[in-house]
Amino acid sequence: MTRRDFINRTSAGYAGLSAWGLLRAAPAAAFSLPANGTDTHGNGRRVVILGAGLAGMATAYELGKLGYDCTLLEARNRSGGRVWTIRGGTSETELGGTPQTSQFAPGNYFNAGAARIPHHHQLTLQYCRELGVPLEIFNGSNEAAYLYNHQPASGLTAAAGGGATQPAAVSPLANRRMRIKEYHNDMRGYTTELLAKALDQGQLDQNLTKEDVEKLVDFLKNEGDLNTAHLYKGTNRRGYKTQPGAGPTPGEVVDPYGLTDLLRSGFMQPVFYNVGDYIYEQQTTLMQPVGGMDAIPKAFEARLAGKIQFNARVTELRKTEKGVRVVYQKGGKPAEMEAEFCVCTLPLPVLKNIESDISGTVKRAADFVPYIKTGKIGLQFKRRFWEEDDGIYGGISRTNMDINQIWYPSYGFMKPTGVLIGYYNFYGRAEAVGALPVAERQQLALAQGKQIHPQYATEFENAFSLAWHRIPHSEGGWAMYDDATRRKQYPALLEPDGPIYFAGEHTTYLTAWMAGALTSARRAVEAIHKRVG
Amino acid sequence: MTRRDFINRTSAGYAGLSAWGLLRAAPAAAFSLPANGTDTHGNGRRVVILGAGLAGMATAYELGKLGYDCTLLEARNRSGGRVWTIRGGTSETELGGTPQTSQFAPGNYFNAGAARIPHHHQLTLQYCRELGVPLEIFNGSNEAAYLYNHQPASGLTAAAGGGATQPAAVSPLANRRMRIKEYHNDMRGYTTELLAKALDQGQLDQNLTKEDVEKLVDFLKNEGDLNTAHLYKGTNRRGYKTQPGAGPTPGEVVDPYGLTDLLRSGFMQPVFYNVGDYIYEQQTTLMQPVGGMDAIPKAFEARLAGKIQFNARVTELRKTEKGVRVVYQKGGKPAEMEAEFCVCTLPLPVLKNIESDISGTVKRAADFVPYIKTGKIGLQFKRRFWEEDDGIYGGISRTNMDINQIWYPSYGFMKPTGVLIGYYNFYGRAEAVGALPVAERQQLALAQGKQIHPQYATEFENAFSLAWHRIPHSEGGWAMYDDATRRKQYPALLEPDGPIYFAGEHTTYLTAWMAGALTSARRAVEAIHKRVG
Repeated sequence: MTRRDFINRTSAGYAGLSAWGLLRAAPAAAFSLPANGTDTHGNGRRVVILGAGLAGMATAYELGKLGYDCTLLEARNRSGGRVWTIRGGTSETELGGTPQTSQFAPGNYFNAGAARIPHHHQLTLQYCRELGVPLEIFNGSNEAAYLYNHQPASGLTAAAGGGATQPAAVSPLANRRMRIKEYHNDMRGYTTELLAKALDQGQLDQNLTKEDVEKLVDFLKNEGDLNTAHLYKGTNRRGYKTQPGAGPTPGEVVDPYGLTDLLRSGFMQPVFYNVGDYIYEQQTTLMQPVGGMDAIPKAFEARLAGKIQFNARVTELRKTEKGVRVVYQKGGKPAEMEAEFCVCTLPLPVLKNIESDISGTVKRAADFVPYIKTGKIGLQFKRRFWEEDDGIYGGISRTNMDINQIWYPSYGFMKPTGVLIGYYNFYGRAEAVGALPVAERQQLALAQGKQIHPQYATEFENAFSLAWHRIPHSEGGWAMYDDATRRKQYPALLEPDGPIYFAGEHTTYLTAWMAGALTSARRAVEAIHKRVG
Repeated sequence: MTRRDFINRTSAGYAGLSAWGLLRAAPAAAFSLPANGTDTHGNGRRVVILGAGLAGMATAYELGKLGYDCTLLEARNRSGGRVWTIRGGTSETELGGTPQTSQFAPGNYFNAGAARIPHHHQLTLQYCRELGVPLEIFNGSNEAAYLYNHQPASGLTAAAGGGATQPAAVSPLANRRMRIKEYHNDMRGYTTELLAKALDQGQLDQNLTKEDVEKLVDFLKNEGDLNTAHLYKGTNRRGYKTQPGAGPTPGEVVDPYGLTDLLRSGFMQPVFYNVGDYIYEQQTTLMQPVGGMDAIPKAFEARLAGKIQFNARVTELRKTEKGVRVVYQKGGKPAEMEAEFCVCTLPLPVLKNIESDISGTVKRAADFVPYIKTGKIGLQFKRRFWEEDDGIYGGISRTNMDINQIWYPSYGFMKPTGVLIGYYNFYGRAEAVGALPVAERQQLALAQGKQIHPQYATEFENAFSLAWHRIPHSEGGWAMYDDATRRKQYPALLEPDGPIYFAGEHTTYLTAWMAGALTSARRAVEAIHKRVG
């Protein structure tokens, strides 16, 4: 293939990509539906919305703009659902649990549910803009945070007597913390060295010209910071033993870890893979509202004055000739409400326990779409040792211990005290830890966290923990679809079931994200308005 | 080598690394010098400090704590030196230039000099803590920012008629913007695919066991997001053509760019290498003071009330029997001051033009240590289109055009207007652009920036530019040592020249950084106090 052929071919290949638009999401804007003839506005048609989380409130907000008469029924005494910020005074009692009240100092908090806004979730960002919610950066990928691979000491004995197929013995890199920058740069160094070697030796039969190979090797030299012989011998990118300073102090670079040590130390486990910008939804830049994620639900709530009935737990959802009838508990007594339409945003584990006339296919979806088990603990410390001692300002440390992750706050830098998230775990770990009494959860978080931060021992003050699968009115983290449930259960949630529309993150491909709740709301509003018009 | 030998060997290899302390810089703390017998305190000894930048002010602040009587002579009408924030109303006239006054709206600014604090610059962070300067995150590595490789159209003709050794023809990936995440993930994908192939084929003669190779290939599969056949076919990490959404909208992933296209498109130029966390001093997390970098000099200045003489340009520096005599211009008239010691923090290009008794070796250093040429322009726009349209919240776009970099503000997200840094360039580019009249600099910044952001055309409001090598009392960005100047010139700056001590970033291995200025100040204070004691 000649160069000209090559250019022609690849130009054609990229022809579909416009010069500007390729990966730019359409700028999200205030929602604006096309006029529906004379019936442009809702003309006061009644809509009952189940749940005052983001999906429910965005639905009411947008339907309200169009002239619909909305009422939200919310089982809790607060709005926001799984968008929930824990501050001093926050109380909760889990299903089967004992009451907890947070003792955090004023100004300290953590986001128990939604905690970050990807820069490409234009809809969430648009609502922040429209509702005047100030944002700041959520520091997701911090090269200074730690990795900690726990290996029980017993592993040594077992492997010493075992064969080559045994699990790795306790490695020199186990049971000690390592900066993410060390791991990243060592692995990049060794892998680029290996590839440069293969390319130098002409071992790879690629459709690459000699010039291409030279350019690729140049890239690798920089990517891995290889020396002139194309070898990785460590680099200042991974840090200094003694920092450069004034006078005759050039700084001293540390030797890298060994490749086989890294390979055999358990750092090939997925918990250590999912670091940095390798996950689309977690790529920099991530944002958060100033002062806590609940600034978003509070902003919606402020625009829905008088429309939300709190402490109103729905018990029945019935279809009638004119629309729907909803029965709910209000102040210990049953109450009911009729409306032309219903938008049901209840999480499926809640919906499945409500007496209702919803169709069998929706009921099956509620029964068979699993929700993730997940938990967090906020730990308040007397001082921000992670900042003062370790230079960690936000970001996430990762470990194969039960605590899974430690999140450092991306706000209040250098304040005297601080709250970090001492665990954020999923699945079996979340189930096991969530099954413990709160005092034992705290004990576990402190004991394991101390392996990474010995300062835990002297600086701890108090804690607040939660297991989302045990939180009333949520009973799970978010919907977890696999290919089979997407195919079999998901479609039922997308169509109106008579006068009942479904919304919430579980009705989207953005499960777990606020953007899912918000886009599902717009979809429901659009569908209702189209039907009316 | 047996596994046990291996473990023993590598354990010994890491034995020097303590479990906790390895890469942790000693926590910086308030400066505290050991007592010097009865003369612990300066007892009012007079010290004249030349320059009220960070080095000079930190010297005065610390000597003041010890009881010395310090006076700072500052040529400008402000403190901070190269720590300088441009706001509405800021005026400057460059050497040989015409006056400029910034028209930025209230709340908008950019940091003309120092603009970021690495998380490992503990000393800078410690002074922020000690002086009560609130910090926020500076977003340095933004995967959503752009790369733009400019290739002139004439390249096509030349290369079409040329041989294989000619520079690349205009490539399908030239003259269009690309998200950093696309470049990162495509290059990672292709390089890990190549290495996985070499490893799969057993082509690399490494000291790796079969198990090690399996683990490494697992790592590569994740690092590059390879498919089950270990091929890179693109991934959602690089973005979506249509985003996932509500209902039947799973999102559509874009095909990756071709490896040869990337290799031949000029993306192997260093400007595109230096992206993300590949430079130690630019690794996440970076910080900035809330409201502008000059919060740091202002905090020092507030603690030095009455000690700084502004508009006091030094013209002579003399050694006397009792110490030093400094002659300076004050209100158009010469004045002079005597002191026991002098701490000279003047940049070398300024020092070399002062009549003085300093030694020949210091004079030679002042003559031969080059300073970088560098410039920035702040551009105010009517709206933050980079946020609204492109989802870019802080971070840096990079290009091989003269503008070199575009910096998006890491503050004031979602405000109606904003100031971005339209170029930040160095060396020849900075010299060429800096030589232009300010109106032409602005024209150049807009014309080139428009290639990346077409919104420049309609949203621009006003600009303020500067070339540090043309700024009076600085005359350069920072000292640029190579091995030869470190060996030949640097040592002269580290020793006292009689009663004269030198401080400033040029007396450190942290050139260009505020931490350099601050650590040099502590070094000077320590030396003077030791001599007195």
